[in-house]
Amino acid sequence: MKFSTRMDRIKPSAIRDVQKKISAKPDVISFAAGLPDPALFPLDDYKKAADDMIDEKGASAFQYGLTKGYGPMLDKLVGRLSTKEKIDCSKENLCMTTGATQGLALIANMFLDEGDVVLTESPSYLGAINACRPYGVDYIGVATDDDGMDVDELERILSQNDKVKMVYVIPNFQNPTGKAWSLERRKAFMNVIAKHDVVVVEDNPYGELRFKGDFVPTLKSMDTQDKIIYLGSFSKIMAPGLRIAFLCGEPKIASLAEEIKETWDLQCNEYVQVFAVKYMDEFDLEAHVDKIKALYLKKCDLMLAEMDKYFPSNVRIIRPEGGMFIWFELPEGLDSTELLQGALDAGVAYIPGESFYPSNVKKNGVRLNFTLVSEEQIEKGIKILGEYLATVC
Amino acid sequence: MKFSTRMDRIKPSAIRDVQKKISAKPDVISFAAGLPDPALFPLDDYKKAADDMIDEKGASAFQYGLTKGYGPMLDKLVGRLSTKEKIDCSKENLCMTTGATQGLALIANMFLDEGDVVLTESPSYLGAINACRPYGVDYIGVATDDDGMDVDELERILSQNDKVKMVYVIPNFQNPTGKAWSLERRKAFMNVIAKHDVVVVEDNPYGELRFKGDFVPTLKSMDTQDKIIYLGSFSKIMAPGLRIAFLCGEPKIASLAEEIKETWDLQCNEYVQVFAVKYMDEFDLEAHVDKIKALYLKKCDLMLAEMDKYFPSNVRIIRPEGGMFIWFELPEGLDSTELLQGALDAGVAYIPGESFYPSNVKKNGVRLNFTLVSEEQIEKGIKILGEYLATVC
Repeated sequence: MKFSTRMDRIKPSAIRDVQKKISAKPDVISFAAGLPDPALFPLDDYKKAADDMIDEKGASAFQYGLTKGYGPMLDKLVGRLSTKEKIDCSKENLCMTTGATQGLALIANMFLDEGDVVLTESPSYLGAINACRPYGVDYIGVATDDDGMDVDELERILSQNDKVKMVYVIPNFQNPTGKAWSLERRKAFMNVIAKHDVVVVEDNPYGELRFKGDFVPTLKSMDTQDKIIYLGSFSKIMAPGLRIAFLCGEPKIASLAEEIKETWDLQCNEYVQVFAVKYMDEFDLEAHVDKIKALYLKKCDLMLAEMDKYFPSNVRIIRPEGGMFIWFELPEGLDSTELLQGALDAGVAYIPGESFYPSNVKKNGVRLNFTLVSEEQIEKGIKILGEYLATVC
Repeated sequence: MKFSTRMDRIKPSAIRDVQKKISAKPDVISFAAGLPDPALFPLDDYKKAADDMIDEKGASAFQYGLTKGYGPMLDKLVGRLSTKEKIDCSKENLCMTTGATQGLALIANMFLDEGDVVLTESPSYLGAINACRPYGVDYIGVATDDDGMDVDELERILSQNDKVKMVYVIPNFQNPTGKAWSLERRKAFMNVIAKHDVVVVEDNPYGELRFKGDFVPTLKSMDTQDKIIYLGSFSKIMAPGLRIAFLCGEPKIASLAEEIKETWDLQCNEYVQVFAVKYMDEFDLEAHVDKIKALYLKKCDLMLAEMDKYFPSNVRIIRPEGGMFIWFELPEGLDSTELLQGALDAGVAYIPGESFYPSNVKKNGVRLNFTLVSEEQIEKGIKILGEYLATVC
């Protein structure tokens, strides 16, 4: 059997390899996950919503529906985007997707040809890098500081490289670094983008999980030129297993996404869309998000406090104001992939940072997740990790 | 914005245009659908299964899961494939997909490069043709008679054309013609395939809906060379809105499908997989399938009887032994697309056959669906259609 040429470019997620190493040691405390805390899933409410939905909507929840998505779900999105994110849109701008991953995959399919260049923050979300890889594109990681993407470097690259087709960014509590862009940086980014013919993908799965600091508007809400394609998700505020997500862009984009999706999987799960609408009608999703934020704040603060207590002073810790991850950097020259085995032997797991770099790989970063672990695990695990780091830093 | 070159090849489903015409006339009796009868969805059983699942499985049904699929669901598939389809496989051979459409899309992505040739029955499923189109392939429709694909023509094409990469077939109650291949034809097909380096996709969404005649084994069950990739689906035996489907092929295929799927949407809906397993544990899916078959047999027989009563004698009717569709052919020279408006004006809708031909388009075929309409609608609608056809045939 002869596979298509694009199969040579498929690369399994490096995180998966790390996860395999970790699952070989089931007794370690793992900060390597990227999962929400399942204790927060409101199971009783979900059960009631599922029951009531079947009583009221009956067979229609199980039948084929529209590729674009379930009408009342799209209506909910229009409302929530306006209220929560200051994004004005209509159903015309929307297409439901199976996770935000599918939104990105649809856009990659829509725009990328071999030889095109994709810009990302450096580091950036590994899944996004992998989603574009089969199209034979090149990546450039744009330098990123604590306020967001370096707009001078962005301007320089865009001016010098006419192969750049897409810029992918996660301005809120990015995976892996947890960083959020400042308002000033967002404005400056939009000014640079306005001058160039590129598509910007704003991925915002963590935006609603701001548990510290003030709300900062999305790029999409500042987008007067319809240049931004916004990806939203219910994975972190309801549950990832439902795979409820969407893209929001100009009508032509939403409509092309629908046409590609029709050939990829016909439509998202109808049942969970009807279910999610029923849940939002009967229960207070915003109050539930407040509960998530309160617990994540507590866990994050605890983890930071323990890191301050046990980590060597030459480790640089990024303190997030939301999301699910804490990033830290070892002194230059240290390689967190090489150090992983030692950490596992000591009893803790993390994700080494190198796989998050699309280019100019740095090896001293580490991603920790604070949402899946218990407070007890945080206390115990960070102490172990800190004591191990003290022996190598 | 400059879209990728493959966007020029995206073509919205022609059926969608027909559906638009039909929805402009909401009072017509429509035989144009491709939907199962929602009255058959066992809502009370589904409700109990969903409740029990949340009680017993709790948060895990809502959390991220494996790209390959939910373990117990894969176990169920291994069992059902062996019992129902005489296909011996293990989890290694399987990957869950969002509808069988995604199975086909994954395989197209895995194998097809620009200029490759895909063979299909003539006519064949429109969705399959559209799924491969973005890869810039050419299609050849292989002549197909009432027993299945013409294996002499298949042999001739395969011998003469080294660009053929894939053969896509629906041997059971095909959409659109409702035809099922004979056992002899299946054996002859496997003999031809054995001699050539091609991938065969066997799409079997309707196989369990045989309501007449004897069971005929799947191609996959005769596949000693691992050449067949089998697509199965729960859309027609449970509910299409759940989007539960899978592919079964050699381990390398299943594993590549998993890797592509990871970049496309990370994983199928976890919730509905856990739900489906719970439903199958608590209730008798096979007894439910028997109920579906009994009702579809009744509707199909009624429609055929009414067609015999009212259709002009020069219309050729294909009598299916299962599935959801009846196909008929108008006398040569008539164009069912042109005649649609007259039918709509008279009060009935159908799908014109021409869009189901990948090449050598014939315009005299018509697809009727008998599962979504009521018996009363069948009686009334077929009389109207027959009387209209009598004026044009």
